[in-house]
Amino acid sequence: MKKFAVILSGSGVYDGSEIHEATLTLLAIHNNECEYQCYAPDIEQHHVINHITGEEMPEKRNVLIESARISRGDIKPLSEFKVEDCDALILPGGFGAAKNLSTYAFDGVNSKVLPELKEVLINMHEAKKPIGAMCISPVIIANVLKNTTLTIGNDEAVANNIELMGSTHLKTSYGEVMADKLNMVFTTPCYMLDSNLVDIYDGANNLIESIIDNLPK
Amino acid sequence: MKKFAVILSGSGVYDGSEIHEATLTLLAIHNNECEYQCYAPDIEQHHVINHITGEEMPEKRNVLIESARISRGDIKPLSEFKVEDCDALILPGGFGAAKNLSTYAFDGVNSKVLPELKEVLINMHEAKKPIGAMCISPVIIANVLKNTTLTIGNDEAVANNIELMGSTHLKTSYGEVMADKLNMVFTTPCYMLDSNLVDIYDGANNLIESIIDNLPK
Repeated sequence: MKKFAVILSGSGVYDGSEIHEATLTLLAIHNNECEYQCYAPDIEQHHVINHITGEEMPEKRNVLIESARISRGDIKPLSEFKVEDCDALILPGGFGAAKNLSTYAFDGVNSKVLPELKEVLINMHEAKKPIGAMCISPVIIANVLKNTTLTIGNDEAVANNIELMGSTHLKTSYGEVMADKLNMVFTTPCYMLDSNLVDIYDGANNLIESIIDNLPK
Repeated sequence: MKKFAVILSGSGVYDGSEIHEATLTLLAIHNNECEYQCYAPDIEQHHVINHITGEEMPEKRNVLIESARISRGDIKPLSEFKVEDCDALILPGGFGAAKNLSTYAFDGVNSKVLPELKEVLINMHEAKKPIGAMCISPVIIANVLKNTTLTIGNDEAVANNIELMGSTHLKTSYGEVMADKLNMVFTTPCYMLDSNLVDIYDGANNLIESIIDNLPK
């Protein structure tokens, strides 16, 4: 049974992993008769957002502990990730990808990626194992791996930043996957478009299927 | 287009709504070409649980604000719920149903249901509009509406409590729905069984389909 590592960044679209994208990725993995292990960095969230008002709350939360809400407690610190333990890796979206896993939300093309995640991505790439990224997460791939072909849907500002970071951006619509088979990088726009839940599940399922199709037989 | 009210109880299986059940309910509603509005009570959570260790954290969180993480911010306080605004109502599971929406986790057959939720359920029942309940949430129905027929899967202690509260319990397996058409109450076990995500989506989809089939044409 093929195994996916899913890297979470908290629990909630505005300060962590987008819950629908993360949950529907886990469903798509099971639906394709594969298994998963969730990981998250054991770091403080950049901030905590009240998801009704959009305002910052005077609290501190830990990315690993909050991510465990999505995985029902079964999660490992990202520091324990080993390339040999998985067949492929997925980064769901949500602002956590741009605030906790990287500084993209604040620094754009000059953003930094969390060093332990950067190492994981470089090691996966060197092992020629597939990396999937959803929604805004492809900006992390663009930051770490140059000369890839990626999609975040059709947002011109983000697409332009991806090009400035040294990769190629191609526009996609609901549920579509950009498969860069040379780099084994697979991306899909999800909530970077004005998607509904059915579109998100389509995208997650298409992403997982595309990756499985490109795994060694 | 038929409209479902989905009542959340926080965000995370151990102190709020079970995230997979809630998310897959929203997906099942869209997948059946219906729409939803999420609601949650504007109250403090009973407690905050670290989902890795299972231990209580020295924090306070608000049920409505945390529930908004599951609905991407689009949520109303339960006090604004009106029977005429929906065609059916769903209670996903998670310990939030037994700790925030009721005291079932602590008081069993002697538990109390949050008064504003009790009123909502009585009003729905009097209007003969369908109520769906997943996982542990049928204990709330048993508490408020007597002489219903319900399922929580096959847990003997909880089934026994449902009988003691004056309803009938019938065993069900993965993805099955108990449809009490006389009372317009529909229940499915979800994570009360050792389900995987595919089972949860089956259960959610079967629940929504069963309710739609019993709506006035």
